[in-house]
Amino acid sequence: MPELRKDPVVERWVVIATERARRPMDFVPETVAARGLEGCPFCPGHEDRTPPEVYRSGGSEDGPWSVRVVPNKFPALHLDGEVQAVGEGIYDRIDGVGTHEVVIETPDHFAGLGTLPAAHVGEVLVAYRERLLALRKDPRLEYVLIFKNHGVAAGASLEHPHSQLIATPILPELVVEELEGAVRYFRMKERCVWCDIVRQERRDGARLVLEEEGFVAVAPYASRFPYELCVLPTTHRASFESLLPDEVDALARLLREAIGRLARLFGDPPYNFALHTAPLRETDPEHFHWHLELMPKLTRLAGFELGSGFFINPTPPEDAARFLRQAGRSPERAPA
Amino acid sequence: MPELRKDPVVERWVVIATERARRPMDFVPETVAARGLEGCPFCPGHEDRTPPEVYRSGGSEDGPWSVRVVPNKFPALHLDGEVQAVGEGIYDRIDGVGTHEVVIETPDHFAGLGTLPAAHVGEVLVAYRERLLALRKDPRLEYVLIFKNHGVAAGASLEHPHSQLIATPILPELVVEELEGAVRYFRMKERCVWCDIVRQERRDGARLVLEEEGFVAVAPYASRFPYELCVLPTTHRASFESLLPDEVDALARLLREAIGRLARLFGDPPYNFALHTAPLRETDPEHFHWHLELMPKLTRLAGFELGSGFFINPTPPEDAARFLRQAGRSPERAPA
Repeated sequence: MPELRKDPVVERWVVIATERARRPMDFVPETVAARGLEGCPFCPGHEDRTPPEVYRSGGSEDGPWSVRVVPNKFPALHLDGEVQAVGEGIYDRIDGVGTHEVVIETPDHFAGLGTLPAAHVGEVLVAYRERLLALRKDPRLEYVLIFKNHGVAAGASLEHPHSQLIATPILPELVVEELEGAVRYFRMKERCVWCDIVRQERRDGARLVLEEEGFVAVAPYASRFPYELCVLPTTHRASFESLLPDEVDALARLLREAIGRLARLFGDPPYNFALHTAPLRETDPEHFHWHLELMPKLTRLAGFELGSGFFINPTPPEDAARFLRQAGRSPERAPA
Repeated sequence: MPELRKDPVVERWVVIATERARRPMDFVPETVAARGLEGCPFCPGHEDRTPPEVYRSGGSEDGPWSVRVVPNKFPALHLDGEVQAVGEGIYDRIDGVGTHEVVIETPDHFAGLGTLPAAHVGEVLVAYRERLLALRKDPRLEYVLIFKNHGVAAGASLEHPHSQLIATPILPELVVEELEGAVRYFRMKERCVWCDIVRQERRDGARLVLEEEGFVAVAPYASRFPYELCVLPTTHRASFESLLPDEVDALARLLREAIGRLARLFGDPPYNFALHTAPLRETDPEHFHWHLELMPKLTRLAGFELGSGFFINPTPPEDAARFLRQAGRSPERAPA
């Protein structure tokens, strides 16, 4: 059973994935594993190489599919047992109860969220929403983090387009910090901080990159990374699960376009994204506002960032936004 | 002038290094630049390729040296003007007043902290102490972060052994979190949390890796990274600057040995370290306890870590400590 351990000073949690325990010789230099389609567990025809799917979109049960969600074969957390807290002297840990799933975004090994038809990107977003709705029924879970690693430098170990979902029995530190900041702001101003950000960015324009009906992509004022983007709904929405059917299309177009423009500027760069939605048990939806953080991996985190929690960003977000606006619209690929 | 910008939600600071501003075409894929000794700005005989030194150890002013500290040629922050706070709507920024220096650890391009004689490692530690003592005289500065990037994967852009120092006009977020946690612990127990950690780790032994007179290296209970180590003084010391001459040797032996053992297990792995010392203006030294975080770069940070602040570590620290203890002692290289 993996463990969640808490740092006794800063109360930061770490998953100690005991079952993947690695000896020194297991750490091999990072290389792109040469993998043909034949070796890909996510390609059509290889459905038996993944654990049974928990969600499927498109097609019949055994027929062709457009999006599949399956449990991760090497999960960081398991849905077994209860969340037990244990003390070890001054330290605290809990059992690593949770779940780890893979969203296989398309049957096409060589596609990507920036090149798939917007309608297909919408199916991926719907898969996220449906898994959030399903997992919130499990009372042991407090949070579901949906994220994507694209490219080896961004931590992807498989080439086939996929995103991931890790559900945890505690709130992740960055979400706690966001909640605390949002509550502090709300107490002072009686407004949602992200609503104010959207308002200021639309009025100002210097960091605004894309706008679709109901959604914007902005280069954050205090961007940690060059060409970082934040995607937000323009009206107040705490939970991603509240995404309505007629909003899916606009969000899909915006996300596809944002990733497509990064590809135009940098030629399919490695990137990560992470969806910050309200905690599953959030009862007061007034102050949280979901957003998706899109982080191209153009530089490396080094000792200063790791040691200080302070980032050095060599590209002002106003410059990044200008280049991304100039990158223009990428043509929608005709659906097959 | 670089800017320090604050995220309006989580109050995380970012250095927007406007003078290094990069257009999309400036981001080239990461490669090891082929650099001979001839091209190295840190090798002896090339002293004129760095800004004038602010510290030197060994030799006369123009003679051979063992350690040099010079301003960074491409600094993230500058010591110009006053720390001015500016509002931009809901956002806050201050001018990037600070300093960025390079500690050239040895004239030997091919040496390293794990292979240099311990006495030489001691000279590097003394250089850190002297720069901390000098910089605390500048009232604009609140913190000095000393860190090292070793190897391209850990963010080093030059091969010649060096560490860096960035002095900032605000406290870095991770130091603030440590201070808050330490104060919370102290109020509850009237003891320093790191003193309690040292006590428990020495009694327990499972995560204890090295011990020299007055210092230990432990694999932290909630290690974020495989084979992460934390080096601490065994008696309470808030500031690294308080390091006494007769303690330098023991600490140098311990640090050299810790890095040497990582090299034995992983063959000169990339790594970062960061020194957490008390803030320059800390007036109550009861609750802070300096420590050095040593982080080998064996895995990549990906979307989950970036999105949650939550780490997945595939190697339990007890296993890492056992392998590091078994790696035995590396022979001290005879001084030249």
